[in-house]
Amino acid sequence: MIYLDNAASTQIHDDVVDSMLPFLKEQFGNPSSIHRYGRQSRKAVEKARKQIAQLVNAEPSEILITSGGTESNTTVLHGLVSKLSRGKIITSSIEHDAVLEPCKRLEKNGHKLEYLPVNDSGMVEPTSLEQKISDDTTLVSIMLANNEIGTVQPISEFARICHSHNVPFHTDAVQAVGKIPVDVKATNVDFLSISSHKLNGPKGVGALYIREGFAIDPVILGGGQERGMRSGTENVAGIVGFGKACEIAKNNFDTNLSGMLSLRDDLIRKVTDEISGVTINGDLESRLPNNAHFTFLGVNGEDLIIKLDEHGIAASTGSACSINTQKASHVLQAMGFSHEQITGSLRLTVGIFNTQDDVNKTVIALKQIVKELRDVSPFKDKYSFLQN
Amino acid sequence: MIYLDNAASTQIHDDVVDSMLPFLKEQFGNPSSIHRYGRQSRKAVEKARKQIAQLVNAEPSEILITSGGTESNTTVLHGLVSKLSRGKIITSSIEHDAVLEPCKRLEKNGHKLEYLPVNDSGMVEPTSLEQKISDDTTLVSIMLANNEIGTVQPISEFARICHSHNVPFHTDAVQAVGKIPVDVKATNVDFLSISSHKLNGPKGVGALYIREGFAIDPVILGGGQERGMRSGTENVAGIVGFGKACEIAKNNFDTNLSGMLSLRDDLIRKVTDEISGVTINGDLESRLPNNAHFTFLGVNGEDLIIKLDEHGIAASTGSACSINTQKASHVLQAMGFSHEQITGSLRLTVGIFNTQDDVNKTVIALKQIVKELRDVSPFKDKYSFLQN
Repeated sequence: MIYLDNAASTQIHDDVVDSMLPFLKEQFGNPSSIHRYGRQSRKAVEKARKQIAQLVNAEPSEILITSGGTESNTTVLHGLVSKLSRGKIITSSIEHDAVLEPCKRLEKNGHKLEYLPVNDSGMVEPTSLEQKISDDTTLVSIMLANNEIGTVQPISEFARICHSHNVPFHTDAVQAVGKIPVDVKATNVDFLSISSHKLNGPKGVGALYIREGFAIDPVILGGGQERGMRSGTENVAGIVGFGKACEIAKNNFDTNLSGMLSLRDDLIRKVTDEISGVTINGDLESRLPNNAHFTFLGVNGEDLIIKLDEHGIAASTGSACSINTQKASHVLQAMGFSHEQITGSLRLTVGIFNTQDDVNKTVIALKQIVKELRDVSPFKDKYSFLQN
Repeated sequence: MIYLDNAASTQIHDDVVDSMLPFLKEQFGNPSSIHRYGRQSRKAVEKARKQIAQLVNAEPSEILITSGGTESNTTVLHGLVSKLSRGKIITSSIEHDAVLEPCKRLEKNGHKLEYLPVNDSGMVEPTSLEQKISDDTTLVSIMLANNEIGTVQPISEFARICHSHNVPFHTDAVQAVGKIPVDVKATNVDFLSISSHKLNGPKGVGALYIREGFAIDPVILGGGQERGMRSGTENVAGIVGFGKACEIAKNNFDTNLSGMLSLRDDLIRKVTDEISGVTINGDLESRLPNNAHFTFLGVNGEDLIIKLDEHGIAASTGSACSINTQKASHVLQAMGFSHEQITGSLRLTVGIFNTQDDVNKTVIALKQIVKELRDVSPFKDKYSFLQN
């Protein structure tokens, strides 16, 4: 199998699994217990917190551990805003549902919600934030990197604009952390969401960076873990694995980055060279190193996924979560794509375990599949000019 | 080491770890992905949902998977009540903080909150619910089994009273499931919280039973997983382990129950026979099979824990989470215990991996430690009548 859906989830690094095993076996204490089983677990959680912090240049005390990126987003959007008066929330039109849905709930609860548009490359323009931000703005949340098209937004610039209006700034960085340099101090963001399973760690764990000085109303209440900001017995094995994944991502950053870039660029080059009627979507410069997002005219993306799967290649049309809601991509809609362009889209996201052979085989399979699908397309005549 | 803190957390069963490993290794797909990696994960999650449902005699469609018992409690207390008009919430005075804290937040948000008292055995009397329940009651939440003293409450009776007033009934069953028979149909509860790590499964996963016909406003919003009631990429390995733990608990139910009962009863017998000035707290009949909760007069429970730890025995004074808040036990206070009785308390909770040898060694260590501590106690004279 060739796995090219690393934006949906990633393979756990072997060293990460190994780091977790003791905490799935003999070290099963509750970190809140005062006996040695408890202390072992507590120590492991705090070590992981440090590893997570180091990857984004935060202080360990600024890292709130959650059950994942989605909970991190809900936590800041619910927990910070609940402390503030009703005002305006500003987000972008290409956020993941994990930001959009909490924002919509805030809107239902009386907050004003405004969306920043994107240009046809999927970039949010800082000027659009300048125009919308006002004295009654409560929070701005704009993603660091988009999960579908991989565009990387100028978050330092957004943070600067926000702070000049005394507005806190949150960024959903789940797709970015581990793939591009993320530095909470340099970018000056106030809140940043991280997901473990997007960076070769286990699923079910994530973090929210909370700049020192900010407090959050907890979403999940109870025993007072995470300094009262997130209750519930800690997922020790998952947290340890997440920490290890962060450490590995930091230590291998340059190698991983250049490896992914080289495969991804080769993939784009070959697909666009060897297949006709294909476009590459999203800004090519300000973009994650692992994302390739295409539109194949005259082809249905869903069919493409199914055929690729039969060829042993895992890919997606866009957000994995979209299967739950069956909506057309709001990201591509926001970029002004036609129905036809959206239908024909395919996301291929490489990861640290992919090889050149994976890319070569994928290009060969894609050529064949696109030709087959176009040959049986009801719109065949329309695309008869396309030669594979 | 001898681990007698199974109410805080339990050792993961080897077969549970084995069931998780494929999902920490080669089967890393996102369950929302439509390719085979995704489908494998989806299938595993749905199998686990069935295993969880079977342990409590629910339908799989009635099981909402969460990040743990605490999230389950917050989910029903926030998510159900948010759909209802402001009214009265009724709970007991001996709930875990995972119920009390969400209840207090509801109170802050304008709901009325009433606590049912307990008798000196730690039992909630159904008549007290009869007296407090009224037409404006929104929800009643009373735990199935107490985490400190192990008392098992008459939840069928509570459910009956609630339903005769058309009020939904929730029970926090995290300490009970896997240890005593729990049947959502027979008890007729509407919501029931379960925790994986209390029944030899991994930490970081739990479930909320939601009777068919009830809907919940999600606490965590996003990609629409769990039929829109709990977003976030599923913790596949954790969920699979939780499911396996439920299956094992079901298949070995009678053996586990009689094993824990026999060890626990022997422990109580020996401690009360061989050490003077000790009482066993909480109802002895309506009680979890694994809980022994003592008061040693003239001894500080915290000192006892530390000394036991030095002897290689893991125990606790009460709720593990209490370390986060450093409060005296509200459970023992509600039972009318004096400061002295609370201070001298010790909780020993056996699990499926304990042996007779563990019990024997613990009794020997306890005798020695209690004598030592009483010898140096500033209240020594007061307890000079006590002979060890």
